[in-house]
Amino acid sequence: MLTNTMKQHVTKLQQKKYRYEFQEFIIEGKKAIDEAFQNTAKLTTIFIQEEKSESEEFDQVIQRAKKEHIPVYFVSKKDIKDIKTTSTYPGISAIVTFQPQTLATITQNTPIIVLDSINDPGNLGTIIRTADWFGFTTILLSENCVDPYNEKVVRSTMGSIFHMNLIQSTNIVQDVALLKQKKYKAYGFTMKGKNIKGLKKSKKSVYIFGSESHGIQEDLLPLCNGLYSIPGKGKAESLNVAVSAAVVMYKVV
Amino acid sequence: MLTNTMKQHVTKLQQKKYRYEFQEFIIEGKKAIDEAFQNTAKLTTIFIQEEKSESEEFDQVIQRAKKEHIPVYFVSKKDIKDIKTTSTYPGISAIVTFQPQTLATITQNTPIIVLDSINDPGNLGTIIRTADWFGFTTILLSENCVDPYNEKVVRSTMGSIFHMNLIQSTNIVQDVALLKQKKYKAYGFTMKGKNIKGLKKSKKSVYIFGSESHGIQEDLLPLCNGLYSIPGKGKAESLNVAVSAAVVMYKVV
Repeated sequence: MLTNTMKQHVTKLQQKKYRYEFQEFIIEGKKAIDEAFQNTAKLTTIFIQEEKSESEEFDQVIQRAKKEHIPVYFVSKKDIKDIKTTSTYPGISAIVTFQPQTLATITQNTPIIVLDSINDPGNLGTIIRTADWFGFTTILLSENCVDPYNEKVVRSTMGSIFHMNLIQSTNIVQDVALLKQKKYKAYGFTMKGKNIKGLKKSKKSVYIFGSESHGIQEDLLPLCNGLYSIPGKGKAESLNVAVSAAVVMYKVV
Repeated sequence: MLTNTMKQHVTKLQQKKYRYEFQEFIIEGKKAIDEAFQNTAKLTTIFIQEEKSESEEFDQVIQRAKKEHIPVYFVSKKDIKDIKTTSTYPGISAIVTFQPQTLATITQNTPIIVLDSINDPGNLGTIIRTADWFGFTTILLSENCVDPYNEKVVRSTMGSIFHMNLIQSTNIVQDVALLKQKKYKAYGFTMKGKNIKGLKKSKKSVYIFGSESHGIQEDLLPLCNGLYSIPGKGKAESLNVAVSAAVVMYKVV
């Protein structure tokens, strides 16, 4: 049984401000929990649907939780309604801790993806997953991006949330300027730039993507060493931002 | 005011079987309606939220509808609940006709995208939009893909639904075999193929993408002239299918 305090805590974690207050977020599904274990993420609590407490499916998770002293709650159908973040609860969920990061903690000279005002959770999650696939390790998010620890974002990262340094900027223009002082080159992707064919790979690069509706904010444009576009020859007006970012990542890796 | 018959008709169009029975689908939002006009799609009915009947925003649409003898219904808040497909109605929607297509109607020798069991509406919509961007004109859908005239798919195509030949296969294996008889070469994208670097562009090509969870169905694999993968060096297990398709399309165009 879940105490009201616990139910309230899980509900709070569906709001950004509490996720940062507690430095915790929610993951759902066996695969996400396996990923968390594999990546030595710190799980503080595991919830399993009561009816599935004996199922073989979650046996390994329960054993591992016992070994690592992680409390496991078996939750009634009624209580699941209060803690689930999806319409169909996958039988298992957990609370995981995270460490907010800053640009100062990123010491390696690796290329950085900058996202300016990406609001769609699915797009952000897909960009994190794609960046992980292509071996990027750092994403810098402007102040008005959707929170990467939002449950929808987490879900669409398909586990890549555990592999990526996610930095929430409080002043993206200042942060990109700082990176340029550190000899990074900045490349922006817009509708009317040069063909990305000419884009060369380099470790000290910043790749900036803006929102589909507004593009990159004006204050960032003068910081770019070059503006590039993905050539198209059809009738579509634009590409989805996660798709554009994927094509660029493929090109520069 | 909307008659019950009209309300029922619009509600029916939210189901696949009725969309094909009537050869009609629903579009929502000013932009989609502008796109439909631009692409000489046949609009049979336009709905505008009563409160916005005098707004400048829809003035041009109303004028054009009058000129083309398309009935415009001004709909009360109460009735909108019955006809809207999104939680926030954008003030305007319409019924558009479509012509189901078959492989036989495709006469040009153009590359064809084949989608096998793509169930996610957002992914299908994004693939249609991306294909349109890169100048592809034909997509062949296996029998168990989500219907491209589903309202969520239509929305995420961002108007590209009007530019693409969408063919619903009733036997995808047979259809791909038929294309091969017509001297097309088939390329499948799997987790363990050759590097797509080696993929060459050619007009008579079929590019086959499977679902993220199950990949390309086994019966299609022997029909492929080559199996290819997008090289990754990070920790992600896989790429989103719309992202994979985009990278491949960029590569072969």
